[in-house]
Amino acid sequence: MKLVDMTVKDYLDLLKSNAPAPGGGSVSALAGAQGAGLIAMVCDLTIGKEKYADFEEGCKAAKEEALKLYEALTEGVDKDTEAFNKVSAAYKMPKETDEEKAARSAAIRAANLEATEVPFHTVELCLAGLKAAQTIVGKSNPNAASDLGVAALNLLAGIKGAWLNVKINLPGVKDEEAKARFEAGAALIEEAEVLAKAIYEEVLNSL
Amino acid sequence: MKLVDMTVKDYLDLLKSNAPAPGGGSVSALAGAQGAGLIAMVCDLTIGKEKYADFEEGCKAAKEEALKLYEALTEGVDKDTEAFNKVSAAYKMPKETDEEKAARSAAIRAANLEATEVPFHTVELCLAGLKAAQTIVGKSNPNAASDLGVAALNLLAGIKGAWLNVKINLPGVKDEEAKARFEAGAALIEEAEVLAKAIYEEVLNSL
Repeated sequence: MKLVDMTVKDYLDLLKSNAPAPGGGSVSALAGAQGAGLIAMVCDLTIGKEKYADFEEGCKAAKEEALKLYEALTEGVDKDTEAFNKVSAAYKMPKETDEEKAARSAAIRAANLEATEVPFHTVELCLAGLKAAQTIVGKSNPNAASDLGVAALNLLAGIKGAWLNVKINLPGVKDEEAKARFEAGAALIEEAEVLAKAIYEEVLNSL
Repeated sequence: MKLVDMTVKDYLDLLKSNAPAPGGGSVSALAGAQGAGLIAMVCDLTIGKEKYADFEEGCKAAKEEALKLYEALTEGVDKDTEAFNKVSAAYKMPKETDEEKAARSAAIRAANLEATEVPFHTVELCLAGLKAAQTIVGKSNPNAASDLGVAALNLLAGIKGAWLNVKINLPGVKDEEAKARFEAGAALIEEAEVLAKAIYEEVLNSL
């Protein structure tokens, strides 16, 4: 059963259990999905209201972007747990013969790459969400200002949490090109920190 | 229907819709519930393993605390949306006669107090979660280090997000004692920032 098809209560119960998945990777994608969903909501509470006519175009663009990210991040909740499960399965493959050993090593390498790629994509999606949030801060319904701030906080938690998942899986990535690309992600984290701080403070000062 | 009884997908779909609730308050409680749940998981992945015998007692204590906070934060997801709905309902009360006006004003005051109290409690619960996480950072299963970091990130998002909800509702709180108590919450946010940063950096440096 997919995690997103479980009830929120059952998902949380499975999260808190001693099962290693779902874990921080799925949580980070869900944090991002909540953030992107809130951006769409804030836009919807702005669009079509005469009082906020000046914000109309910006909110329409931000909503379109947020909905795309929302879909991808919602899918990411299950993708991360599936990738984790593939790593576990690969380690459990037989390793008696040379052929089995080679097949197992190849499976572990492929699974590790996917388990790093998935949270790296979560970083990218959440950062795009923060950029969408930035375009409408102070330019959307002020009654939903706290919701926009919460969106930024959850997107940042998604980015930094996914980054920890990239880092913990990185030693298992043997592809040098992929490794270099992942390592360059550190700059995205710094960019996200600055963006999220600016959005949070602008929201807080407006309340 | 309670939000936590909906599927994750349906909850997210409702969140992203133009319905003003669920909004940032429920999202903040869910961020905290995910954080507390992850602490319990990390403890479970440590407890009972000979290799981590030195961490056993600390993880047992942290798990007990995390599970209490997890329950309260999971309840908070619905409590926040219920409190928001009460405010909306109070504003829609009739205001023709003096009696109606007085009843409406009293209902708005009571609803605003509750809508501020609920996120304030989320701040307190998430801060307690961060303190529990701090006791086991570096003293729990290192294979789950990223999960503990993600826990701290989500608890911090819960705290700061709930704080924005306290702040946006504060102008409607007329009870001076309650107002002063809520305003003093600013110190909790600073405390949480320091704690979460220390946990995140210790985890990041360990990877």
